[in-house]
Amino acid sequence: MADARPLTLRELRRDLHANPESGWKEFRTTALIAHELDERDYTLHLGADAVDEDARLGVPDEADIANAVARAREKGAPESYLERMDDITGLVAEKTYGDGTGPTVGVRVDMDALERSEATDDDHRPARDGFGSTHPNEMHACGHDGHTAIGLGIAREFDENGGFDGTLKLFFQPAEEGGRGGKPMSETDHLADVEYFLALHLGLGNETGMVVAAYEHPLSNAKLDVTFEGAPSHAGNAPNEGRNALQAATTAIQNLYAIPRHADGTTRINVGKVHSPNPQNIVAEEVRMRVEVRGGSAELNDYMLEKARRVVEHAAGMHDVELQTGLYGKTTTFTADDAMIDAVADAASDLDAVSTVVNRADMGGSEDASYLIRRVQENGGEATYIGIGASNPYGHHTARFDIDEDSLNIGVDVVARTVRTL
Amino acid sequence: MADARPLTLRELRRDLHANPESGWKEFRTTALIAHELDERDYTLHLGADAVDEDARLGVPDEADIANAVARAREKGAPESYLERMDDITGLVAEKTYGDGTGPTVGVRVDMDALERSEATDDDHRPARDGFGSTHPNEMHACGHDGHTAIGLGIAREFDENGGFDGTLKLFFQPAEEGGRGGKPMSETDHLADVEYFLALHLGLGNETGMVVAAYEHPLSNAKLDVTFEGAPSHAGNAPNEGRNALQAATTAIQNLYAIPRHADGTTRINVGKVHSPNPQNIVAEEVRMRVEVRGGSAELNDYMLEKARRVVEHAAGMHDVELQTGLYGKTTTFTADDAMIDAVADAASDLDAVSTVVNRADMGGSEDASYLIRRVQENGGEATYIGIGASNPYGHHTARFDIDEDSLNIGVDVVARTVRTL
Amino acid sequence: MADARPLTLRELRRDLHANPESGWKEFRTTALIAHELDERDYTLHLGADAVDEDARLGVPDEADIANAVARAREKGAPESYLERMDDITGLVAEKTYGDGTGPTVGVRVDMDALERSEATDDDHRPARDGFGSTHPNEMHACGHDGHTAIGLGIAREFDENGGFDGTLKLFFQPAEEGGRGGKPMSETDHLADVEYFLALHLGLGNETGMVVAAYEHPLSNAKLDVTFEGAPSHAGNAPNEGRNALQAATTAIQNLYAIPRHADGTTRINVGKVHSPNPQNIVAEEVRMRVEVRGGSAELNDYMLEKARRVVEHAAGMHDVELQTGLYGKTTTFTADDAMIDAVADAASDLDAVSTVVNRADMGGSEDASYLIRRVQENGGEATYIGIGASNPYGHHTARFDIDEDSLNIGVDVVARTVRTL
Amino acid sequence: MADARPLTLRELRRDLHANPESGWKEFRTTALIAHELDERDYTLHLGADAVDEDARLGVPDEADIANAVARAREKGAPESYLERMDDITGLVAEKTYGDGTGPTVGVRVDMDALERSEATDDDHRPARDGFGSTHPNEMHACGHDGHTAIGLGIAREFDENGGFDGTLKLFFQPAEEGGRGGKPMSETDHLADVEYFLALHLGLGNETGMVVAAYEHPLSNAKLDVTFEGAPSHAGNAPNEGRNALQAATTAIQNLYAIPRHADGTTRINVGKVHSPNPQNIVAEEVRMRVEVRGGSAELNDYMLEKARRVVEHAAGMHDVELQTGLYGKTTTFTADDAMIDAVADAASDLDAVSTVVNRADMGGSEDASYLIRRVQENGGEATYIGIGASNPYGHHTARFDIDEDSLNIGVDVVARTVRTL
Repeated sequence: MADARPLTLRELRRDLHANPESGWKEFRTTALIAHELDERDYTLHLGADAVDEDARLGVPDEADIANAVARAREKGAPESYLERMDDITGLVAEKTYGDGTGPTVGVRVDMDALERSEATDDDHRPARDGFGSTHPNEMHACGHDGHTAIGLGIAREFDENGGFDGTLKLFFQPAEEGGRGGKPMSETDHLADVEYFLALHLGLGNETGMVVAAYEHPLSNAKLDVTFEGAPSHAGNAPNEGRNALQAATTAIQNLYAIPRHADGTTRINVGKVHSPNPQNIVAEEVRMRVEVRGGSAELNDYMLEKARRVVEHAAGMHDVELQTGLYGKTTTFTADDAMIDAVADAASDLDAVSTVVNRADMGGSEDASYLIRRVQENGGEATYIGIGASNPYGHHTARFDIDEDSLNIGVDVVARTVRTL
Repeated sequence: MADARPLTLRELRRDLHANPESGWKEFRTTALIAHELDERDYTLHLGADAVDEDARLGVPDEADIANAVARAREKGAPESYLERMDDITGLVAEKTYGDGTGPTVGVRVDMDALERSEATDDDHRPARDGFGSTHPNEMHACGHDGHTAIGLGIAREFDENGGFDGTLKLFFQPAEEGGRGGKPMSETDHLADVEYFLALHLGLGNETGMVVAAYEHPLSNAKLDVTFEGAPSHAGNAPNEGRNALQAATTAIQNLYAIPRHADGTTRINVGKVHSPNPQNIVAEEVRMRVEVRGGSAELNDYMLEKARRVVEHAAGMHDVELQTGLYGKTTTFTADDAMIDAVADAASDLDAVSTVVNRADMGGSEDASYLIRRVQENGGEATYIGIGASNPYGHHTARFDIDEDSLNIGVDVVARTVRTL
Repeated sequence: MADARPLTLRELRRDLHANPESGWKEFRTTALIAHELDERDYTLHLGADAVDEDARLGVPDEADIANAVARAREKGAPESYLERMDDITGLVAEKTYGDGTGPTVGVRVDMDALERSEATDDDHRPARDGFGSTHPNEMHACGHDGHTAIGLGIAREFDENGGFDGTLKLFFQPAEEGGRGGKPMSETDHLADVEYFLALHLGLGNETGMVVAAYEHPLSNAKLDVTFEGAPSHAGNAPNEGRNALQAATTAIQNLYAIPRHADGTTRINVGKVHSPNPQNIVAEEVRMRVEVRGGSAELNDYMLEKARRVVEHAAGMHDVELQTGLYGKTTTFTADDAMIDAVADAASDLDAVSTVVNRADMGGSEDASYLIRRVQENGGEATYIGIGASNPYGHHTARFDIDEDSLNIGVDVVARTVRTL
Repeated sequence: MADARPLTLRELRRDLHANPESGWKEFRTTALIAHELDERDYTLHLGADAVDEDARLGVPDEADIANAVARAREKGAPESYLERMDDITGLVAEKTYGDGTGPTVGVRVDMDALERSEATDDDHRPARDGFGSTHPNEMHACGHDGHTAIGLGIAREFDENGGFDGTLKLFFQPAEEGGRGGKPMSETDHLADVEYFLALHLGLGNETGMVVAAYEHPLSNAKLDVTFEGAPSHAGNAPNEGRNALQAATTAIQNLYAIPRHADGTTRINVGKVHSPNPQNIVAEEVRMRVEVRGGSAELNDYMLEKARRVVEHAAGMHDVELQTGLYGKTTTFTADDAMIDAVADAASDLDAVSTVVNRADMGGSEDASYLIRRVQENGGEATYIGIGASNPYGHHTARFDIDEDSLNIGVDVVARTVRTL
């Protein structure tokens, strides 16, 4: 990025792909974007000005954050932006175009990578072409590298080609994976005046050339980190002296799976990452686990979360162990607005590179843009979440995920053309 | 009992056998004994003067008590003593013999029957000889009819044959079965001045002619009645609207059996009388159960009881149901005093009807005379619990239990002779 | 029923109401209906000729059946029909009208009462007017007395007024409550040639004058009676010698509630009638319970039933106890046929007594006419399940349930008019 | 060890302390001992000749073994003995002294280290004096380095000072920690002719100068490695498609802790090392855990082990997951022989360095020399297990465990003097 010539979107996406940063560690990514948008006269809100610091979920510990900052610095992140971030990633950048009489439009892209390794053989294009991940357990396996590039591409497009007289607000969101960054970004004031709001995702199983004007109805979910802290004792000599964190955890898990189904619709519960490392001859001192609940609506999700909290609380009390819980992530759900869907569908249909337009589809999983969308809708604004096809035979989150980079310009064009019609 | 001639001990035992009264319902039994002891110039402490009313455990409900009083009245219980009892059974009777310079000696016998039916065929002597139980679900299947007769026999013996210059206190205890009457009787002041204390039991698998000078070390136990009260809902249409008492109960039961073993010795737990009567299509509104814990010492028993209380409390909280618990019964443990053992063994050895004397044996089960014995010992007194052999091929608590009535006089003689040597 | 004059439908319904017979005990009901239809030259199929004997579910034990037969005899059931039933209730009666060139039409009504007591105060019309239940724990609290009367009324209608040239098959089904009689009746050959099939229900919360041409999509369900048989032992002296049926049952219950939700739709599970009568000091020898599963489709119901069977089987194995399971009841689901709905709606709309016609509604609960309907549909026939409004402020299955008897003739007329148009 | 001068016992113990090898990895230790005993004309039985290969418990995987062999080679283990071991550690060395008319005496010492790190600060003597562990996660924290040195010291003592005319068999046992090496060593023929048998342990909380002639009655134990293998599925989209290994594991754990107490004595159960690494959004594919049971007798231990196997088997079956179990370790219990106790006590009392002799003490934990001792006793031989005091303020298995090296010669002298009197 030390080039005089700015990177093309494709080059930028590949640079980000080679330097993936997982949730709340997107220091280099944020800094590079901030640098270019600063030069383009965007007003920048960085770190604690972009997200509500106290509302952040699933934040790595301080040492991990410090390491991520150091790594970003080594890899060329401009120091001044690192300083302004002050250990918190995320960026809201805004600029008023033309006479400013048009609407305020928000566009949200996410920046974080996944914590997983990437395929390294030549059948995998990023490896073959030299832009595979250089970070051992991080990989852009969900296309957020492309999303970030598109976000910058939209700014370039309006700067270069105009056609919009309103205010553009670009939301570069951290920590989408796990549903950790959307909620704190939605709890700032930046969305208060947004009249139209667009988020987007590449891929999702669709070929390049297909556009879905609205992916909607994601499952609400919540993830709870749970730690039971008991007291160890020798299981042979003093079984009564321990306070058994494992008995608490197993009682909790059995009852979590048995939370009653709900008459109003879909509910889900699952438990993972259970670890009770005590030696077999010692009563378990500490057990950690992560619980995920889901609901077909925000209310159903809250029903499950409340029940889950009650279960773990009393499982701890039953075995006289301490309980620590932390909300690791949370998402909600939304329905896209008809007018926005029409606008996107019309815009997409006009593009030569777009061969198929679908109006609505149900999003199977969860997505924390949901918090931003609902915030806009609550303020009277309208929103949608666009799917941009990007051919790739391998699924999201796998070691061979990649995107057809032709999708980058399609993404920019669909958004820009839509914005110009609003 | 309307005879002019007083009943012999054998006749009295048969009268009681035919009219068994289970725990806290011993109105006729108490009244008949009180009547004769009153005539013998004993000072009587009846009902709330014999037991601490508020410390009673496992008390039947008011309607049951009222029925028991009415039944006693119909079957000839003298009205004046029924009135003095005022719905509470139990009697402490005391009398000072001779010059009163001797010690104060306590003797405890229990009066209650079991809640079970009795064999009615001719192979069972009480049925054959016409003194089988006339109460459908009550039976003297543990020999307390004989104990009560022996208690009265001791009074007759000293009245008729003297040889004792101290004060005799006779404790006619209600509700031994389940461990419900010993504790409240021990918490009165009647034991405060007792220097020597004797309790006794017939049978216990020993043939007539055998005497065990000290049965000791019963397991401490406690019984807890537990009710979970949830809220019903239709399991098909509104599973989430119920508060499931059955889930609470099963979570409790699983964790009760999993209370950690204790390094210091024997612990036990069991659950019975579990009833969740809800139809299968309705979320369980109420579940009742009874928990029994035991310990090799009072401390171990308390450990189990405390853990059990914690389990049921949090099982209720976990499923958002109400919890009601009531202590149904409780016993403790004791070690007999050497001097008392020697005194009993010497006295027994002098009797022609006694063929074998054993000094000490461990009592397998539980016994709430333990509370009276410990109270005496805490005050500096000495105590033991005597086994009086009484041949019968069938075990205690079975439908064919009976006692060899020759044991009645042996019981009287062993106690009287012991008392005279103290 | 000893009258020379036949009872009116209203009188018949009241006679049945006063003499309710619960599932598989409908001996008097069946015999009375058989008697009149025999006189009307119907061909009768009784007992094992009406239901597949071996496919019956939830059959009471032999003594209960014998008592029910004796009671029916005492209350005037004609002996010849009792004999032909040979301890099995149920009747299929058929008659060909006119030239017999018309279709074969089946009509199913259910005959059984509920096991519950009936209100006896004067606010309850059956009590006030002297036709309240004369059987302590049985009551027609779901309107099947009316259904049975309507079934007979249809025969009378065609006999008296004609207008139909086909074959009428009347299915008087036993044991609908619990879903026990529909399956065995569906597994006979009587439905093989039925081209059109109608079932009906009074009430269901609808006022008199309303007709629902198709109640459909009941939840499939299955009820499983489960008995765990362990071995008792003294919980204090020999806890290891028992095989604890209660531990098996609680392990089962916890895991039953935790059967995974299914992606394809609604599933339900609930457990009721749990009884572990063991005394608290004895390891539980036997625990009984009843499990109910439901599914939004027959496949989902089977998923739950298979999982439930696996859970109870291994809960038993885990605690080394014996397992007995019996299918207490089972229902399936169906979609009504459009042509039938139209025919019923048209017929109902023509009746003066009918004020409102609804084409389709979802049946909330479960209904074992579903098995008969699916059997007809599998054979290429068409079917529906009609709701006949019958005003009553109290809900089905409550102690004050009653029906507006004006609905009886409406039921007859809706069916007869429909049949005439087929 | 390349010195011309042999290491003193103190030097040898320090060399072993610096190079600790955990269970089944004692290649260097075994080879060094074999080398010296070979030079001393002992007959050697190495590897599969010292232990029953198929009876080994808790064996690390092949790669770990290969690494341990390579490490031993690098650190100077003589190649010829490594070859003879052929990937299996353990040594039985025998030599007949004098005229060979005396008895055959066995002495067992264990050689393995613990898998834990050692303190590295100067307050810890091994660190301060330069013989701290050079292996990251291995440490001689139980004194087996000293035991091994004593074993060699006994050979030197008889070679140098004579006084014994029988056959000495030295058992250098691998893998005592976890109870993995005793059973396979006991199942060879080497113990068949052993008339007297001695095992020993340093420390055990006793100061230098104290000798316990018999530590006995260790708790029998068994450790079971358990793996539940299910099938993953997406917990949100297809919860019914998974087979949940975590539900199996939690059902197992709850029921393991609830295995009934046993009337005959002490039983214990505990679970450790529970790991369910599945992400929270994926149904758990695999869960691993280790179960430990104990019993006051071998029978009680077997009772617990059988119950535990039944629980995990049916927990797996209940959730349709595969089960793999492996016995990780097992020990039994024993009572020392009076004649051996007297012999040891007499010998110890004669030593100036011994200030206190205790005849018998109960060993709190578990010890797999128990299998060797029982084998000897079953053959008619006599045995004991000697405690040799070794001052150290820190407990066994802690990071600061050390031994007072004066105890080494005491150990040699107590054994040698005892052997000479047999």
